[in-house]
Amino acid sequence: MSKAVLHLIPNFISEKQNKDSFSNELISVVHQLEYFIAEKAKSTRAFIKKVEHPLPLHEIIVEEYNHKSPPEDFLYAIEGLKQGKQVGLMSEAGVPCVADPGNSVVAYAHKNNIKVVPYIGPNSIIMALMASGFNGQQFTFHGYLAHDERVQKTQIRNIENGLKYSYAQILIETPYGNQKLFNKLLSSFSSDIELHISFDLCGNQEHCETRSIADWKRLNYHIPKLPCIFILGKV
Amino acid sequence: MSKAVLHLIPNFISEKQNKDSFSNELISVVHQLEYFIAEKAKSTRAFIKKVEHPLPLHEIIVEEYNHKSPPEDFLYAIEGLKQGKQVGLMSEAGVPCVADPGNSVVAYAHKNNIKVVPYIGPNSIIMALMASGFNGQQFTFHGYLAHDERVQKTQIRNIENGLKYSYAQILIETPYGNQKLFNKLLSSFSSDIELHISFDLCGNQEHCETRSIADWKRLNYHIPKLPCIFILGKV
Repeated sequence: MSKAVLHLIPNFISEKQNKDSFSNELISVVHQLEYFIAEKAKSTRAFIKKVEHPLPLHEIIVEEYNHKSPPEDFLYAIEGLKQGKQVGLMSEAGVPCVADPGNSVVAYAHKNNIKVVPYIGPNSIIMALMASGFNGQQFTFHGYLAHDERVQKTQIRNIENGLKYSYAQILIETPYGNQKLFNKLLSSFSSDIELHISFDLCGNQEHCETRSIADWKRLNYHIPKLPCIFILGKV
Repeated sequence: MSKAVLHLIPNFISEKQNKDSFSNELISVVHQLEYFIAEKAKSTRAFIKKVEHPLPLHEIIVEEYNHKSPPEDFLYAIEGLKQGKQVGLMSEAGVPCVADPGNSVVAYAHKNNIKVVPYIGPNSIIMALMASGFNGQQFTFHGYLAHDERVQKTQIRNIENGLKYSYAQILIETPYGNQKLFNKLLSSFSSDIELHISFDLCGNQEHCETRSIADWKRLNYHIPKLPCIFILGKV
């Protein structure tokens, strides 16, 4: 194995967060990196600035990827890794590669015997699961509910099946689609199933709440247009 | 909602970790807490000491729970919450309530309108998923593979089914059972499936590696008796 390392660096998940939101251990690793592969160069540069990287920003190389970029596109980073350098991989928000792209870069590293090191950071899926009160011994993260009604029906059947085995069932939505998904869940599952929502985690309006579907229906609840995780489960 | 708060506090996952492994934000919350509900009182007290809590240890109340404890058993903590105090919930290692007990205390809080606040901390499931190079858009955490052969067969069929839908499939084992589970996975899944292992995360022997089942078989690999996460997936 070469001396090269691909560091999987978490980003902020809320504007409220700053240098104090991450460990000194992580900050000191970031301070040593000169190459970054980023989902969004802008948010990676904002992070680098907020954690007070000792190098001037223009001396740090940030290459942006999109879903279609093959790892070979990161000319500077891959060249750096080949030379045994340390490279950071970052998402637009939260930890890379979980409900986020970036995994093809990690797969590239494994194929080329490059060491991969993951770091602790904010992950709304795990934070919401902790806060749900549900069985966290077994769970499934489904990502987004499909828009296509036929696919959606299959997903809902799969979720129902998972609940039978007591697996907590986790979904995510864009802030704009929160209310629609919430209403869909209330109308699709039986009233004794419990639904947890966690929105604006690590932000000023952070809120975590678990109620039965029946209870939520009675409340006529409106979810703000903020990042939100939805979990179905049994207490 | 009362002023009471149940804080979900992460613990270390490796002896190598110390105060610098957590954010200043988290440390300053912990420094304000006088009541803890703990999976293991010993590891919670060790954590409190390592993060340099300003109060002497004997002035901090730590109540231990086990799988059977109803939340009402935490006399001091529940009384504290009723009085509007802040209480910390902690696991023996890592974040509480994920692949760990504690969720009944969180459920109690929701039922009694007590605010629940989750904090960022080490979680080996998410760290291994990041490091796997697999699709982290959808995944299932199964916990342990059952010992009963019939139940195990059903689990393996469910895992195969999840892989068909490109859901990464995550398993955990006790360090002592690592090699047995590893061999079981190599013999149960087809050679083109990829298997990721992450062991001793945040520790001195931390290692993350992804290979096809065929490759692992050729290597005749031995996993050390250290905490390990296993993930099956497709790159």
